[in-house]
Amino acid sequence: MDVKKEKIGFIGLGIMGLPMARNLMKDGFELVVYNRTRSKCTELEEKGAIIANNPADVATNAKVIITMVTDSPDVQELLLGEEGIMETIQKDSIVIDMSTISPKITKELNAELNSKGCYMIDAPVSGGSWGAIEGTLSIMIGGAKSAYERCVPLFESMGKNIIYTGESGMGQTTKLVNQILVAGTMNAVAEALVFAAKSGADLEKTIDAVGGGAAASWQLNNLAPRIVKGDFDPGFMIKLQQKDLRLVIETAQAMNVPIPGTSLASQMFASLLSKGLGDEGTQALVKAYETLAGVEART
Amino acid sequence: MDVKKEKIGFIGLGIMGLPMARNLMKDGFELVVYNRTRSKCTELEEKGAIIANNPADVATNAKVIITMVTDSPDVQELLLGEEGIMETIQKDSIVIDMSTISPKITKELNAELNSKGCYMIDAPVSGGSWGAIEGTLSIMIGGAKSAYERCVPLFESMGKNIIYTGESGMGQTTKLVNQILVAGTMNAVAEALVFAAKSGADLEKTIDAVGGGAAASWQLNNLAPRIVKGDFDPGFMIKLQQKDLRLVIETAQAMNVPIPGTSLASQMFASLLSKGLGDEGTQALVKAYETLAGVEART
Repeated sequence: MDVKKEKIGFIGLGIMGLPMARNLMKDGFELVVYNRTRSKCTELEEKGAIIANNPADVATNAKVIITMVTDSPDVQELLLGEEGIMETIQKDSIVIDMSTISPKITKELNAELNSKGCYMIDAPVSGGSWGAIEGTLSIMIGGAKSAYERCVPLFESMGKNIIYTGESGMGQTTKLVNQILVAGTMNAVAEALVFAAKSGADLEKTIDAVGGGAAASWQLNNLAPRIVKGDFDPGFMIKLQQKDLRLVIETAQAMNVPIPGTSLASQMFASLLSKGLGDEGTQALVKAYETLAGVEART
Repeated sequence: MDVKKEKIGFIGLGIMGLPMARNLMKDGFELVVYNRTRSKCTELEEKGAIIANNPADVATNAKVIITMVTDSPDVQELLLGEEGIMETIQKDSIVIDMSTISPKITKELNAELNSKGCYMIDAPVSGGSWGAIEGTLSIMIGGAKSAYERCVPLFESMGKNIIYTGESGMGQTTKLVNQILVAGTMNAVAEALVFAAKSGADLEKTIDAVGGGAAASWQLNNLAPRIVKGDFDPGFMIKLQQKDLRLVIETAQAMNVPIPGTSLASQMFASLLSKGLGDEGTQALVKAYETLAGVEART
Protein backbone atom coordinates (compact mmCIF):
# COMPACT_ATOMS: atom_id res chain seq x y z
CA MET A 1 0.00 0.00 0.00
CA ASP A 2 1.30 3.45 -0.94
CA VAL A 3 -0.47 5.98 1.29
CA LYS A 4 0.16 8.71 -1.30
CA LYS A 5 -2.21 6.91 -3.65
CA GLU A 6 -4.82 6.05 -0.99
CA LYS A 7 -7.86 8.01 0.11
CA ILE A 8 -7.29 9.02 3.75
CA GLY A 9 -10.16 8.91 6.24
CA PHE A 10 -10.15 11.64 8.86
CA ILE A 11 -12.54 11.59 11.84
CA GLY A 12 -12.68 14.43 14.39
CA LEU A 13 -12.39 18.00 13.13
CA GLY A 14 -11.90 19.84 16.43
CA ILE A 15 -9.35 22.45 17.47
CA MET A 16 -6.55 19.96 16.63
CA GLY A 17 -8.11 17.77 13.93
CA LEU A 18 -9.22 20.52 11.56
CA PRO A 19 -5.80 22.14 11.06
CA MET A 20 -4.16 18.69 10.84
CA ALA A 21 -6.63 17.70 8.08
CA ARG A 22 -5.96 21.01 6.32
CA ASN A 23 -2.21 20.26 6.26
CA LEU A 24 -2.87 16.82 4.72
CA MET A 25 -5.02 18.37 1.97
CA LYS A 26 -2.39 21.04 1.37
CA ASP A 27 0.11 18.22 0.73
CA GLY A 28 -2.22 16.65 -1.84
CA PHE A 29 -3.85 13.89 0.19
CA GLU A 30 -7.45 13.11 -0.78
CA LEU A 31 -9.61 13.05 2.36
CA VAL A 32 -12.85 11.33 3.39
CA VAL A 33 -13.94 13.20 6.50
CA TYR A 34 -16.49 12.65 9.24
CA ASN A 35 -17.38 14.81 12.21
CA ARG A 36 -20.33 14.46 14.60
CA THR A 37 -21.21 18.11 14.04
CA ARG A 38 -21.47 18.17 10.26
CA SER A 39 -21.02 21.95 9.90
CA LYS A 40 -17.34 21.59 10.83
CA CYS A 41 -16.83 19.64 7.57
CA THR A 42 -17.93 22.51 5.30
CA GLU A 43 -14.53 24.14 4.88
CA LEU A 44 -12.85 20.87 3.86
CA GLU A 45 -15.79 19.92 1.62
CA GLU A 46 -15.33 23.20 -0.28
CA LYS A 47 -11.67 22.25 -0.77
CA GLY A 48 -12.68 18.91 -2.27
CA ALA A 49 -12.94 16.48 0.66
CA ILE A 50 -15.60 13.76 0.53
CA ILE A 51 -18.01 13.93 3.45
CA ALA A 52 -18.97 10.60 5.04
CA ASN A 53 -22.24 10.01 6.90
CA ASN A 54 -20.74 7.94 9.71
CA PRO A 55 -17.50 6.13 10.69
CA ALA A 56 -18.59 2.95 8.82
CA ASP A 57 -18.97 5.07 5.70
CA VAL A 58 -15.39 6.37 6.16
CA ALA A 59 -14.07 2.79 6.39
CA THR A 60 -15.94 1.82 3.23
CA ASN A 61 -14.21 4.62 1.31
CA ALA A 62 -10.70 4.66 2.84
CA LYS A 63 -8.20 2.04 4.01
CA VAL A 64 -6.16 4.49 6.08
CA ILE A 65 -8.25 6.20 8.75
CA ILE A 66 -7.01 8.90 11.14
CA THR A 67 -9.00 9.51 14.35
CA MET A 68 -8.51 12.68 16.41
CA VAL A 69 -11.07 12.81 19.23
CA THR A 70 -10.96 13.44 22.98
CA ASP A 71 -10.99 10.32 25.10
CA SER A 72 -10.87 6.51 25.19
CA PRO A 73 -14.69 6.01 25.01
CA ASP A 74 -14.85 8.26 21.94
CA VAL A 75 -12.35 6.07 20.08
CA GLN A 76 -14.11 2.89 21.26
CA GLU A 77 -17.41 4.27 19.95
CA LEU A 78 -15.86 5.18 16.58
CA LEU A 79 -14.58 1.64 16.13
CA LEU A 80 -17.05 -0.59 17.97
CA GLY A 81 -20.24 1.51 18.05
CA GLU A 82 -23.24 1.36 15.74
CA GLU A 83 -22.25 2.43 12.21
CA GLY A 84 -18.67 2.15 13.48
CA ILE A 85 -15.45 1.50 11.60
CA MET A 86 -15.38 -2.23 12.47
CA GLU A 87 -18.65 -2.82 10.59
CA THR A 88 -17.13 -2.11 7.19
CA ILE A 89 -13.36 -2.07 7.57
CA GLN A 90 -11.44 -3.61 4.67
CA LYS A 91 -8.59 -6.11 5.12
CA ASP A 92 -5.11 -4.46 5.48
CA SER A 93 -6.61 -1.17 6.63
CA ILE A 94 -4.71 0.97 9.14
CA VAL A 95 -6.42 3.05 11.84
CA ILE A 96 -4.12 5.81 13.09
CA ASP A 97 -5.43 7.10 16.40
CA MET A 98 -3.89 10.50 17.16
CA SER A 99 -6.11 11.18 20.19
CA THR A 100 -4.58 10.83 23.67
CA ILE A 101 -6.27 7.77 25.20
CA SER A 102 -5.52 4.84 27.49
CA PRO A 103 -2.57 2.61 26.44
CA LYS A 104 -4.58 -0.40 27.68
CA ILE A 105 -7.63 0.38 25.52
CA THR A 106 -5.30 1.10 22.60
CA LYS A 107 -3.90 -2.43 22.91
CA GLU A 108 -7.42 -3.90 23.09
CA LEU A 109 -8.55 -2.03 19.98
CA ASN A 110 -5.37 -3.04 18.16
CA ALA A 111 -6.14 -6.71 18.96
CA GLU A 112 -9.69 -6.28 17.58
CA LEU A 113 -8.29 -4.78 14.39
CA ASN A 114 -5.61 -7.49 14.09
CA SER A 115 -8.42 -10.10 14.17
CA LYS A 116 -9.74 -8.53 10.95
CA GLY A 117 -6.30 -8.44 9.32
CA CYS A 118 -5.92 -4.71 10.10
CA TYR A 119 -3.67 -2.54 12.28
CA MET A 120 -4.00 0.22 14.85
CA ILE A 121 -1.20 2.77 15.14
CA ASP A 122 -1.30 4.95 18.25
CA ALA A 123 0.15 8.35 17.43
CA PRO A 124 -0.73 10.96 20.06
CA VAL A 125 0.77 14.40 19.63
CA SER A 126 2.12 17.28 21.65
CA GLY A 127 2.55 20.87 20.60
CA GLY A 128 -1.00 22.15 21.01
CA SER A 129 -3.18 23.94 18.50
CA TRP A 130 -0.29 26.09 17.24
CA GLY A 131 1.70 22.96 16.45
CA ALA A 132 -1.32 21.54 14.61
CA ILE A 133 -1.69 24.71 12.53
CA GLU A 134 2.02 25.03 11.72
CA GLY A 135 2.46 21.29 11.11
CA THR A 136 5.15 21.11 13.78
CA LEU A 137 3.55 18.63 16.17
CA SER A 138 5.65 16.09 18.04
CA ILE A 139 4.19 12.64 17.28
CA MET A 140 4.84 9.67 19.58
CA ILE A 141 4.11 6.44 17.76
CA GLY A 142 3.39 2.87 18.79
CA GLY A 143 2.13 -0.18 16.87
CA ALA A 144 3.28 -2.60 14.18
CA LYS A 145 6.45 -1.12 12.69
CA SER A 146 5.62 -2.09 9.09
CA ALA A 147 2.26 -0.29 9.33
CA TYR A 148 3.94 2.76 10.90
CA GLU A 149 6.50 2.91 8.12
CA ARG A 150 3.82 3.03 5.45
CA CYS A 151 2.22 6.03 7.21
CA VAL A 152 5.35 8.18 7.55
CA PRO A 153 4.35 10.58 4.70
CA LEU A 154 1.14 11.36 6.62
CA PHE A 155 3.02 12.05 9.86
CA GLU A 156 5.52 14.25 8.02
CA SER A 157 2.64 16.31 6.69
CA MET A 158 1.29 16.97 10.22
CA GLY A 159 4.37 17.01 12.46
CA LYS A 160 8.08 17.52 12.83
CA ASN A 161 9.50 15.45 15.68
CA ILE A 162 8.22 11.98 14.70
CA ILE A 163 9.40 9.20 17.00
CA TYR A 164 8.51 5.51 16.76
CA THR A 165 8.62 4.24 20.35
CA GLY A 166 7.61 0.57 20.08
CA GLU A 167 4.69 -1.83 20.14
CA SER A 168 0.99 -0.95 20.31
CA GLY A 169 0.21 1.39 23.22
CA MET A 170 3.78 2.67 23.54
CA GLY A 171 2.97 5.95 21.77
CA GLN A 172 0.23 6.58 24.34
CA THR A 173 2.59 5.58 27.18
CA THR A 174 5.15 8.09 25.92
CA LYS A 175 2.46 10.79 25.78
CA LEU A 176 1.53 10.05 29.40
CA VAL A 177 5.20 10.34 30.40
CA ASN A 178 5.16 13.72 28.65
CA GLN A 179 2.14 14.79 30.69
CA ILE A 180 3.73 13.71 34.01
CA LEU A 181 6.66 15.99 33.16
CA VAL A 182 4.49 18.88 31.99
CA ALA A 183 2.22 18.78 35.05
CA GLY A 184 5.01 18.42 37.62
CA THR A 185 7.12 21.13 36.05
CA MET A 186 4.16 23.53 35.86
CA ASN A 187 3.39 22.79 39.52
CA ALA A 188 6.96 23.78 40.43
CA VAL A 189 6.63 26.99 38.40
CA ALA A 190 3.37 27.85 40.17
CA GLU A 191 4.81 27.24 43.66
CA ALA A 192 7.96 29.18 42.80
CA LEU A 193 6.12 32.23 41.47
CA VAL A 194 3.74 32.43 44.43
CA PHE A 195 6.67 32.05 46.86
CA ALA A 196 8.49 34.84 45.00
CA ALA A 197 5.42 37.09 44.95
CA LYS A 198 4.80 36.68 48.69
CA SER A 199 8.51 37.45 49.28
CA GLY A 200 8.04 40.77 47.48
CA ALA A 201 10.40 39.81 44.68
CA ASP A 202 10.44 41.51 41.27
CA LEU A 203 8.90 38.63 39.31
CA GLU A 204 10.34 39.42 35.89
CA LYS A 205 13.85 39.79 37.32
CA THR A 206 13.36 36.54 39.22
CA ILE A 207 12.35 34.61 36.08
CA ASP A 208 15.34 36.14 34.34
CA ALA A 209 17.72 35.22 37.13
CA VAL A 210 16.70 31.56 37.40
CA GLY A 211 15.64 30.83 33.80
CA GLY A 212 19.11 30.30 32.38
CA GLY A 213 20.40 27.50 34.60
CA ALA A 214 19.42 24.28 36.34
CA ALA A 215 15.91 25.63 37.04
CA ALA A 216 15.15 26.22 33.35
CA SER A 217 12.24 24.48 31.66
CA TRP A 218 9.95 25.04 28.69
CA GLN A 219 7.15 25.68 31.20
CA LEU A 220 9.16 28.29 33.14
CA ASN A 221 10.66 30.05 30.15
CA ASN A 222 7.44 30.15 28.07
CA LEU A 223 4.58 30.23 30.56
CA ALA A 224 5.92 32.10 33.63
CA PRO A 225 6.28 35.37 31.64
CA ARG A 226 2.62 34.97 30.59
CA ILE A 227 1.50 34.33 34.17
CA VAL A 228 3.08 37.50 35.54
CA LYS A 229 1.42 39.49 32.73
CA GLY A 230 -1.96 37.93 33.59
CA ASP A 231 -2.20 36.07 30.25
CA PHE A 232 -4.11 32.82 30.81
CA ASP A 233 -5.07 32.14 27.16
CA PRO A 234 -4.78 28.44 26.45
CA GLY A 235 -1.88 26.87 24.64
CA PHE A 236 -3.36 23.74 26.21
CA MET A 237 -6.61 23.84 28.20
CA ILE A 238 -6.86 22.79 31.84
CA LYS A 239 -9.85 20.53 31.11
CA LEU A 240 -7.82 18.55 28.56
CA GLN A 241 -4.76 18.45 30.79
CA GLN A 242 -6.95 17.06 33.56
CA LYS A 243 -8.33 14.38 31.20
CA ASP A 244 -4.76 13.36 30.35
CA LEU A 245 -3.79 13.29 34.03
CA ARG A 246 -6.76 11.00 34.71
CA LEU A 247 -5.30 8.60 32.11
CA VAL A 248 -1.88 8.91 33.77
CA ILE A 249 -3.28 8.18 37.23
CA GLU A 250 -5.44 5.24 36.04
CA THR A 251 -2.48 3.73 34.19
CA ALA A 252 -0.12 4.25 37.14
CA GLN A 253 -2.63 2.69 39.55
CA ALA A 254 -3.03 -0.34 37.31
CA MET A 255 0.77 -0.79 37.44
CA ASN A 256 1.05 0.07 41.18
CA VAL A 257 3.37 2.99 40.45
CA PRO A 258 3.04 5.86 42.96
CA ILE A 259 3.11 9.31 41.32
CA PRO A 260 2.43 11.67 44.23
CA GLY A 261 3.65 14.83 42.47
CA THR A 262 1.44 14.23 39.45
CA SER A 263 -1.51 13.48 41.73
CA LEU A 264 -0.91 16.73 43.59
CA ALA A 265 -0.91 18.72 40.34
CA SER A 266 -4.12 16.98 39.28
CA GLN A 267 -5.81 17.88 42.57
CA MET A 268 -4.81 21.51 42.15
CA PHE A 269 -6.17 21.50 38.57
CA ALA A 270 -9.40 20.00 39.99
CA SER A 271 -9.79 23.05 42.23
CA LEU A 272 -9.68 25.25 39.13
CA LEU A 273 -12.21 23.11 37.24
CA SER A 274 -14.54 23.52 40.24
CA LYS A 275 -14.26 27.28 39.67
CA GLY A 276 -15.18 26.94 35.99
CA LEU A 277 -11.67 27.68 34.72
CA GLY A 278 -11.36 24.55 32.54
CA ASP A 279 -10.99 26.54 29.31
CA GLU A 280 -8.00 28.52 30.58
CA GLY A 281 -4.43 27.50 29.78
CA THR A 282 -2.52 25.17 32.08
CA GLN A 283 -0.47 28.13 33.34
CA ALA A 284 -3.59 29.12 35.32
CA LEU A 285 -2.48 26.40 37.79
CA VAL A 286 -0.78 29.32 39.54
CA LYS A 287 -4.26 30.57 40.53
CA ALA A 288 -4.76 27.55 42.79
CA TYR A 289 -1.61 28.45 44.73
CA GLU A 290 -2.48 32.14 44.72
CA THR A 291 -5.79 31.28 46.37
CA LEU A 292 -4.01 29.22 49.05
CA ALA A 293 -1.34 31.84 49.76
CA GLY A 294 -3.50 34.94 49.43
CA VAL A 295 -1.24 36.69 46.95
CA GLU A 296 -1.17 37.24 43.18
CA ALA A 297 1.92 36.59 41.09
CA ARG A 298 1.55 39.55 38.71
CA THR A 299 3.81 42.45 37.82
CA MET B 1 36.57 52.26 47.09
CA ASP B 2 37.99 50.53 44.01
CA VAL B 3 37.82 46.78 44.63
CA LYS B 4 40.63 46.22 42.13
CA LYS B 5 43.02 47.99 44.49
CA GLU B 6 41.67 46.37 47.67
CA LYS B 7 42.79 43.22 49.40
CA ILE B 8 39.91 40.74 49.22
CA GLY B 9 39.11 38.52 52.21
CA PHE B 10 37.89 35.02 51.36
CA ILE B 11 36.47 32.68 54.00
CA GLY B 12 35.45 29.10 53.22
CA LEU B 13 37.61 27.07 50.81
CA GLY B 14 35.32 24.10 50.19
CA ILE B 15 34.25 22.43 46.95
CA MET B 16 32.82 25.79 45.76
CA GLY B 17 34.96 28.35 47.59
CA LEU B 18 38.38 27.06 46.54
CA PRO B 19 37.82 27.26 42.76
CA MET B 20 36.08 30.65 43.17
CA ALA B 21 39.09 31.99 45.11
CA ARG B 22 41.41 30.56 42.43
CA ASN B 23 39.53 32.49 39.74
CA LEU B 24 39.87 35.73 41.73
CA MET B 25 43.65 35.21 42.08
CA LYS B 26 43.91 34.35 38.39
CA ASP B 27 42.36 37.77 37.65
CA GLY B 28 44.94 39.49 39.84
CA PHE B 29 43.01 40.02 43.06
CA GLU B 30 45.13 39.86 46.22
CA LEU B 31 43.49 37.51 48.74
CA VAL B 32 43.47 37.17 52.50
CA VAL B 33 42.05 33.72 53.13
CA TYR B 34 40.75 31.82 56.13
CA ASN B 35 39.45 28.28 56.39
CA ARG B 36 38.69 26.26 59.53
CA THR B 37 40.81 23.38 58.21
CA ARG B 38 44.06 25.23 57.56
CA SER B 39 45.48 22.64 55.14
CA LYS B 40 42.97 23.73 52.49
CA CYS B 41 44.73 27.12 52.37
CA THR B 42 48.10 25.68 51.28
CA GLU B 43 47.50 25.85 47.54
CA LEU B 44 46.46 29.51 47.64
CA GLU B 45 49.28 30.37 50.06
CA GLU B 46 51.80 28.99 47.56
CA LYS B 47 50.23 31.26 44.92
CA GLY B 48 50.74 34.28 47.18
CA ALA B 49 47.60 34.56 49.30
CA ILE B 50 47.91 35.81 52.87
CA ILE B 51 46.64 33.28 55.43
CA ALA B 52 44.58 34.72 58.29
CA ASN B 53 44.29 33.06 61.72
CA ASN B 54 40.57 33.73 62.19
CA PRO B 55 37.72 35.78 60.69
CA ALA B 56 38.60 38.83 62.82
CA ASP B 57 42.10 38.68 61.35
CA VAL B 58 40.58 38.69 57.82
CA ALA B 59 38.54 41.80 58.65
CA THR B 60 41.65 43.56 59.98
CA ASN B 61 43.42 42.99 56.67
CA ALA B 62 40.61 43.38 54.12
CA LYS B 63 37.63 45.70 53.65
CA VAL B 64 35.88 43.44 51.16
CA ILE B 65 35.22 39.99 52.60
CA ILE B 66 33.64 37.08 50.71
CA THR B 67 32.10 34.23 52.72
CA MET B 68 31.31 30.86 51.13
CA VAL B 69 30.17 28.40 53.79
CA THR B 70 27.27 25.99 54.21
CA ASP B 71 24.44 27.29 56.33
CA SER B 72 22.97 30.24 58.24
CA PRO B 73 24.63 29.38 61.62
CA ASP B 74 28.02 29.18 59.88
CA VAL B 75 27.68 32.73 58.54
CA GLN B 76 26.36 33.96 61.90
CA GLU B 77 29.39 32.42 63.63
CA LEU B 78 31.81 34.02 61.14
CA LEU B 79 30.36 37.46 61.81
CA LEU B 80 29.17 37.37 65.42
CA GLY B 81 31.26 34.56 66.99
CA GLU B 82 34.43 34.82 69.01
CA GLU B 83 37.26 36.19 66.86
CA GLY B 84 34.53 37.00 64.34
CA ILE B 85 34.43 39.62 61.62
CA MET B 86 32.36 42.08 63.69
CA GLU B 87 35.16 42.36 66.28
CA THR B 88 37.54 44.13 63.91
CA ILE B 89 35.54 45.21 60.86
CA GLN B 90 36.53 48.60 59.43
CA LYS B 91 34.01 51.31 58.49
CA ASP B 92 32.77 51.07 54.85
CA SER B 93 33.64 47.39 54.62
CA ILE B 94 31.49 45.08 52.50
CA VAL B 95 30.75 41.47 53.42
CA ILE B 96 29.67 39.46 50.35
CA ASP B 97 27.99 36.28 51.50
CA MET B 98 27.87 33.79 48.62
CA SER B 99 26.60 30.91 50.78
CA THR B 100 22.94 29.89 50.48
CA ILE B 101 21.35 30.88 53.79
CA SER B 102 18.10 32.23 55.21
CA PRO B 103 16.88 35.55 53.72
CA LYS B 104 15.69 36.51 57.21
CA ILE B 105 19.09 35.96 58.85
CA THR B 106 20.71 37.75 55.90
CA LYS B 107 18.61 40.84 56.66
CA GLU B 108 19.49 40.63 60.37
CA LEU B 109 23.21 40.41 59.64
CA ASN B 110 22.95 43.27 57.13
CA ALA B 111 21.34 45.42 59.84
CA GLU B 112 24.19 44.56 62.25
CA LEU B 113 26.73 45.56 59.61
CA ASN B 114 24.85 48.76 58.76
CA SER B 115 25.09 49.75 62.43
CA LYS B 116 28.90 49.74 62.00
CA GLY B 117 28.75 51.72 58.75
CA CYS B 118 29.23 48.57 56.67
CA TYR B 119 27.19 46.53 54.15
CA MET B 120 26.20 42.94 53.58
CA ILE B 121 25.63 41.80 50.00
CA ASP B 122 23.86 38.44 49.63
CA ALA B 123 25.11 36.75 46.48
CA PRO B 124 24.24 33.03 46.43
CA VAL B 125 25.16 31.11 43.31
CA SER B 126 23.90 28.31 41.14
CA GLY B 127 25.83 26.21 38.67
CA GLY B 128 27.52 23.75 41.03
CA SER B 129 31.20 22.90 41.33
CA TRP B 130 31.68 22.92 37.55
CA GLY B 131 30.34 26.47 37.36
CA ALA B 132 32.70 27.46 40.18
CA ILE B 133 35.71 25.96 38.38
CA GLU B 134 34.85 27.44 34.99
CA GLY B 135 33.84 30.83 36.43
CA THR B 136 30.39 30.49 34.89
CA LEU B 137 28.24 30.62 38.04
CA SER B 138 24.88 32.35 38.04
CA ILE B 139 24.95 34.92 40.87
CA MET B 140 21.72 36.25 42.40
CA ILE B 141 22.40 39.45 44.28
CA GLY B 142 20.62 41.43 46.98
CA GLY B 143 21.68 44.36 49.17
CA ALA B 144 22.53 48.06 48.90
CA LYS B 145 22.89 48.79 45.19
CA SER B 146 25.88 51.12 45.57
CA ALA B 147 27.78 48.42 47.45
CA TYR B 148 26.82 45.84 44.83
CA GLU B 149 28.04 48.06 42.01
CA ARG B 150 31.46 48.42 43.57
CA CYS B 151 31.77 44.61 43.73
CA VAL B 152 30.86 43.85 40.09
CA PRO B 153 34.49 43.12 39.03
CA LEU B 154 34.63 40.40 41.68
CA PHE B 155 31.37 38.84 40.49
CA GLU B 156 32.55 38.94 36.89
CA SER B 157 35.64 37.03 37.90
CA MET B 158 33.57 34.21 39.43
CA GLY B 159 30.38 34.10 37.37
CA LYS B 160 28.61 34.82 34.14
CA ASN B 161 24.89 35.44 34.68
CA ILE B 162 25.05 38.19 37.31
CA ILE B 163 21.67 39.58 38.32
CA TYR B 164 20.94 42.25 40.93
CA THR B 165 17.50 41.40 42.29
CA GLY B 166 16.88 44.03 44.98
CA GLU B 167 17.28 44.82 48.66
CA SER B 168 19.08 42.76 51.30
CA GLY B 169 17.86 39.14 51.35
CA MET B 170 16.47 39.24 47.81
CA GLY B 171 19.44 37.34 46.37
CA GLN B 172 18.75 34.55 48.88
CA THR B 173 15.02 34.67 48.08
CA THR B 174 15.81 34.26 44.37
CA LYS B 175 18.07 31.31 45.15
CA LEU B 176 15.25 29.67 47.11
CA VAL B 177 12.88 30.22 44.15
CA ASN B 178 15.56 28.49 42.03
CA GLN B 179 15.60 25.53 44.42
CA ILE B 180 11.78 25.20 44.39
CA LEU B 181 11.99 24.90 40.59
CA VAL B 182 14.94 22.52 40.62
CA ALA B 183 13.39 20.19 43.22
CA GLY B 184 9.92 20.11 41.67
CA THR B 185 11.24 19.57 38.16
CA MET B 186 13.54 16.76 39.31
CA ASN B 187 10.61 15.16 41.13
CA ALA B 188 8.63 15.19 37.86
CA VAL B 189 11.58 13.64 36.01
CA ALA B 190 11.87 10.89 38.64
CA GLU B 191 8.15 10.05 38.52
CA ALA B 192 8.14 10.10 34.71
CA LEU B 193 11.14 7.78 34.35
CA VAL B 194 9.82 5.24 36.86
CA PHE B 195 6.38 5.29 35.17
CA ALA B 196 8.09 4.75 31.81
CA ALA B 197 10.29 1.94 33.15
CA LYS B 198 7.34 0.09 34.69
CA SER B 199 5.48 0.50 31.37
CA GLY B 200 8.34 -1.31 29.63
CA ALA B 201 9.28 1.74 27.57
CA ASP B 202 12.65 2.20 25.90
CA LEU B 203 13.94 4.91 28.26
CA GLU B 204 16.40 6.59 25.91
CA LYS B 205 13.80 6.81 23.13
CA THR B 206 11.29 8.16 25.65
CA ILE B 207 13.65 10.93 26.81
CA ASP B 208 14.32 11.72 23.17
CA ALA B 209 10.61 11.82 22.28
CA VAL B 210 9.57 14.16 25.10
CA GLY B 211 12.75 16.22 25.58
CA GLY B 212 12.19 18.62 22.69
CA GLY B 213 8.79 20.10 23.56
CA ALA B 214 6.67 21.33 26.44
CA ALA B 215 8.11 18.67 28.79
CA ALA B 216 11.69 19.88 28.30
CA SER B 217 13.77 21.08 31.23
CA TRP B 218 17.42 21.38 32.18
CA GLN B 219 16.83 18.60 34.70
CA LEU B 220 15.27 16.26 32.10
CA ASN B 221 17.69 16.98 29.30
CA ASN B 222 20.85 16.87 31.45
CA LEU B 223 20.11 14.49 34.29
CA ALA B 224 17.64 11.91 32.89
CA PRO B 225 20.27 10.53 30.45
CA ARG B 226 22.62 10.11 33.45
CA ILE B 227 19.95 8.33 35.47
CA VAL B 228 19.23 5.71 32.81
CA LYS B 229 22.99 5.05 32.53
CA GLY B 230 23.22 4.63 36.33
CA ASP B 231 25.42 7.72 36.77
CA PHE B 232 24.66 9.28 40.16
CA ASP B 233 27.84 11.36 40.52
CA PRO B 234 26.97 14.71 42.06
CA GLY B 235 26.64 17.92 40.09
CA PHE B 236 24.90 18.99 43.29
CA MET B 237 24.75 16.73 46.36
CA ILE B 238 21.48 15.55 47.89
CA LYS B 239 22.61 16.64 51.38
CA LEU B 240 23.11 20.22 50.19
CA GLN B 241 19.86 20.21 48.20
CA GLN B 242 18.07 19.06 51.35
CA LYS B 243 19.68 21.89 53.36
CA ASP B 244 18.44 24.38 50.78
CA LEU B 245 14.94 22.85 50.83
CA ARG B 246 14.91 23.23 54.62
CA LEU B 247 15.54 26.96 54.09
CA VAL B 248 12.76 27.07 51.48
CA ILE B 249 10.28 25.33 53.77
CA GLU B 250 11.20 27.46 56.83
CA THR B 251 10.86 30.64 54.78
CA ALA B 252 7.56 29.55 53.21
CA GLN B 253 6.14 28.61 56.61
CA ALA B 254 7.09 31.98 58.05
CA MET B 255 5.15 33.61 55.16
CA ASN B 256 2.25 31.09 55.31
CA VAL B 257 2.87 30.04 51.70
CA PRO B 258 1.95 26.38 51.04
CA ILE B 259 4.50 24.59 48.82
CA PRO B 260 3.23 20.99 48.78
CA GLY B 261 5.26 19.88 45.73
CA THR B 262 8.51 21.17 47.21
CA SER B 263 7.67 19.50 50.53
CA LEU B 264 7.03 16.21 48.74
CA ALA B 265 10.40 16.38 46.99
CA SER B 266 12.09 17.15 50.31
CA GLN B 267 10.44 14.13 51.94
CA MET B 268 11.62 11.88 49.13
CA PHE B 269 15.17 13.28 49.48
CA ALA B 270 14.91 12.56 53.24
CA SER B 271 14.31 8.89 52.45
CA LEU B 272 17.59 8.85 50.53
CA LEU B 273 19.51 10.59 53.31
CA SER B 274 18.23 7.91 55.69
CA LYS B 275 19.90 5.35 53.39
CA GLY B 276 23.21 7.22 53.52
CA LEU B 277 22.99 8.54 49.95
CA GLY B 278 23.53 12.23 50.84
CA ASP B 279 26.72 12.50 48.80
CA GLU B 280 25.05 11.36 45.56
CA GLY B 281 23.76 13.82 42.98
CA THR B 282 20.19 15.12 43.14
CA GLN B 283 19.29 12.87 40.16
CA ALA B 284 19.39 9.98 42.67
CA LEU B 285 15.92 11.19 43.71
CA VAL B 286 14.76 8.60 41.16
CA LYS B 287 15.92 5.88 43.59
CA ALA B 288 13.21 6.88 46.07
CA TYR B 289 10.53 6.28 43.42
CA GLU B 290 12.24 3.10 42.21
CA THR B 291 12.03 1.74 45.76
CA LEU B 292 8.33 2.59 45.94
CA ALA B 293 7.48 1.12 42.53
CA GLY B 294 9.81 -1.89 42.62
CA VAL B 295 11.45 -1.14 39.29
CA GLU B 296 14.73 0.42 38.13
CA ALA B 297 14.85 3.11 35.45
CA ARG B 298 18.03 1.91 33.70
CA THR B 299 18.80 0.93 30.12
